[in-house]
Amino acid sequence: MNMNTRNKEKALVVFSGGQDSTTCLLWALKRYKEVIAVSFDYGQRHKAELDCAKEITEKLGVEWHVLDMSLLNQLAPNSLTRAEIVVDENAPEEGTPNSVVDGRNMLFLTFAAVFAKQRGITDLITGVSQSDFSGYPDCRDVFIKSLNATLNLAMDTTFCIETPLMWIDKADTWKLARDLDGLELVRDMTLTCYNGVKGDGCGRCPSCKLRKQGYEEFLARYR
Amino acid sequence: MNMNTRNKEKALVVFSGGQDSTTCLLWALKRYKEVIAVSFDYGQRHKAELDCAKEITEKLGVEWHVLDMSLLNQLAPNSLTRAEIVVDENAPEEGTPNSVVDGRNMLFLTFAAVFAKQRGITDLITGVSQSDFSGYPDCRDVFIKSLNATLNLAMDTTFCIETPLMWIDKADTWKLARDLDGLELVRDMTLTCYNGVKGDGCGRCPSCKLRKQGYEEFLARYR
Repeated sequence: MNMNTRNKEKALVVFSGGQDSTTCLLWALKRYKEVIAVSFDYGQRHKAELDCAKEITEKLGVEWHVLDMSLLNQLAPNSLTRAEIVVDENAPEEGTPNSVVDGRNMLFLTFAAVFAKQRGITDLITGVSQSDFSGYPDCRDVFIKSLNATLNLAMDTTFCIETPLMWIDKADTWKLARDLDGLELVRDMTLTCYNGVKGDGCGRCPSCKLRKQGYEEFLARYR
Repeated sequence: MNMNTRNKEKALVVFSGGQDSTTCLLWALKRYKEVIAVSFDYGQRHKAELDCAKEITEKLGVEWHVLDMSLLNQLAPNSLTRAEIVVDENAPEEGTPNSVVDGRNMLFLTFAAVFAKQRGITDLITGVSQSDFSGYPDCRDVFIKSLNATLNLAMDTTFCIETPLMWIDKADTWKLARDLDGLELVRDMTLTCYNGVKGDGCGRCPSCKLRKQGYEEFLARYR
């Protein structure tokens, strides 16, 4: 299939069931006639992530696919995919937190692009953000742009990777969800907690702390 | 692991057990202190490919790994991975042959890069060639260079993708094998035939025809 023209009517959202990708899904639903959501099953600690993704896509009436990425475990055993490793309570000040799988985001987006092309989709939506950059090089804007060019060359296709959250912080991500009429949905149905607790989460892990802090800033800034 | 410096002592060869990647493996063995070979198991038609890869690495005393890429089948059912589909006897004049999985080479190289980084390896060797470009966009030099940049950004690492065959044709690939003292090994132990026949192959499929033609040109040009 040659797709040298962008198809602006359809989009594929890389969807984890977390705050960021759910906000991106709401964003896409306002902009495209047809949206599909794709999640990755990579033996993550918490299958609850995929349960949330299922619930949210059902509620929103979005076609949802799960791609098996279990082979990530061949490459980089680590704390997000292996339950026996303890997650840092706080991310280290230098370098990347121990939950990173090098190149994971690149693999996910590349798989998503292959899948999208099969479906005649050129627009790929991902919730990465340089603003809450916590040491993951593959969340940076420069990486996404380079990947977009590489994907286009690899598959002779005009992909457009859209990153609605790239330059906004957590507070503004909450505001975006509200502007998209999805504040309650994002607050109550998404999972970001490292310990697998939906909504407000465990309250102790770094992810819950960031989420809570962002929500409070959102309330303070925009109430 | 931060690897912002190229490690010139070790290399990873993306290795299928075919003529091209075996020649690259011989090339790498002359240049690096330590070489590892990585093959991909993606449910290819002919497990014979992996058998050849095993035999060759054993003969050469090279550490060999097989990565499971069976999930490729989730993405793009096609003639190289699904036995029930008939392979074109001749590649179509336009576009790509029906054996292509879009983006396959990009996925293989990205997985190889993740694996390499785990091992402290920055040099990746692949046998892609723009000279025998048969419609696969992810064999072009511009793609490889773009991918190299993207991998470096994704993983904050100084990867160097080496492509010894990029600008040489099949005849010169045979010459390179001879210059590396590996002509017999490549001729007798490698598999390129679409029908899974080692060495000279079935003689009928497009891959065998190209291989034979290249060998005859090599003999004519350099005998």
